[in-house]
Amino acid sequence: MDHVFYAPEAEWNDVLPEEEALHCLKVMRLKTGDMCTLTDGKGSFFEAQIIETDKRNCRFRLLAKKHCPAFWQGRIHLALGPTKNMDRMEWLVEKATEIGVDEISFLNCRYSERRVLKRERIERIAISAMKQSMKAVVPVINEMADFNDFISKVTFEQGFIAHCHDGNKVMLRDALRPAKDTLILIGPEGDFSIDEVNLAHNAGCSSVGLGPSRLRTETAALVAVNMFNLINY
Amino acid sequence: MDHVFYAPEAEWNDVLPEEEALHCLKVMRLKTGDMCTLTDGKGSFFEAQIIETDKRNCRFRLLAKKHCPAFWQGRIHLALGPTKNMDRMEWLVEKATEIGVDEISFLNCRYSERRVLKRERIERIAISAMKQSMKAVVPVINEMADFNDFISKVTFEQGFIAHCHDGNKVMLRDALRPAKDTLILIGPEGDFSIDEVNLAHNAGCSSVGLGPSRLRTETAALVAVNMFNLINY
Repeated sequence: MDHVFYAPEAEWNDVLPEEEALHCLKVMRLKTGDMCTLTDGKGSFFEAQIIETDKRNCRFRLLAKKHCPAFWQGRIHLALGPTKNMDRMEWLVEKATEIGVDEISFLNCRYSERRVLKRERIERIAISAMKQSMKAVVPVINEMADFNDFISKVTFEQGFIAHCHDGNKVMLRDALRPAKDTLILIGPEGDFSIDEVNLAHNAGCSSVGLGPSRLRTETAALVAVNMFNLINY
Repeated sequence: MDHVFYAPEAEWNDVLPEEEALHCLKVMRLKTGDMCTLTDGKGSFFEAQIIETDKRNCRFRLLAKKHCPAFWQGRIHLALGPTKNMDRMEWLVEKATEIGVDEISFLNCRYSERRVLKRERIERIAISAMKQSMKAVVPVINEMADFNDFISKVTFEQGFIAHCHDGNKVMLRDALRPAKDTLILIGPEGDFSIDEVNLAHNAGCSSVGLGPSRLRTETAALVAVNMFNLINY
């Protein structure tokens, strides 16, 4: 497959989004008549031909559609307290998208060290990782939410909260069931508060450990995403 | 546990290495009489007391030793063609050390885009990740080696090579056996050559896939390290 461009409205809007058009025309130097591949980020690839260009716009004609849903069974929603260092979050989003994730939520927790986050920037990283890893599904990136609001509204078939407090914990490795709508909660650098852990329990989540090593927030999140994928392909 | 300092010769040399001494004195501002924790990176923690300091030196007395070997059974040796972008390799070394790895080798492959690498810098990152993740074992970081030399000398109980060429492959997930001395070979961005794959086969390695997603070099390496750990704790 040649270079992939992201056209979320490909089926009803025959013009590339501006950023993608610039990439297509200025970086890849495609011209009228050239063939390319588009994805709508919702599970489809399209074979397309460029039919009209000017400096900043690129019009295309769809020639064929190929359904290419997520490679994994079930659904994985990763929700975490973002780290103070934004690079670590950007890295996580890139890697989780490469490996496979459906939805990412950033939580404003009691002990969060970061309370704002540029959703659009994170989304661009996810789109780029989707294209690079030849997927046609981009994860949903949610606006930052307060933990209490989030946990009172989120739905799932199996939910897990990873934290460092004492208490009954199973290993996520042993608790995860395949082909389920799964929520994984990962605390910020300051960990979840006891109240947050209790709210998650009341919402139906189990406390889990991720293994014997002490992991940073972003490493824990990636280890959990990888575990989900390992039992679901 | 308080802050951990790396003292590879702790049992026969009672002075901290210069870099650690600076960190101890200038950053952490410890003083004569203060207690601290040392690790030799070979599986031991030491409770120690600082008994003498000057501007750049820090002498200690060992009070207790605690054996703390690797958390995993077997042994994992990761060997890979480094990426052009050094940040990606540094990130990998940090994350692999957090999750658990015994030895990392960088290979000069036919299609490598990077043929030199600062071993000391990589080692410092591994030491920092070991301390941060509260381990007492630092991975061995080898000097870059030519693929052909490397594969003719390396020993293992089970060996795997991940590449993008066609042919018989099993999933690493299904092929990995626990508690074994394991070698995992991950190609550079330009992939292993067919000759390199054949040499690895002749040396006893099996071709494996890491899952349905196309992964970057550093992501593939981390996924493999995580898989090893998942079945060995």
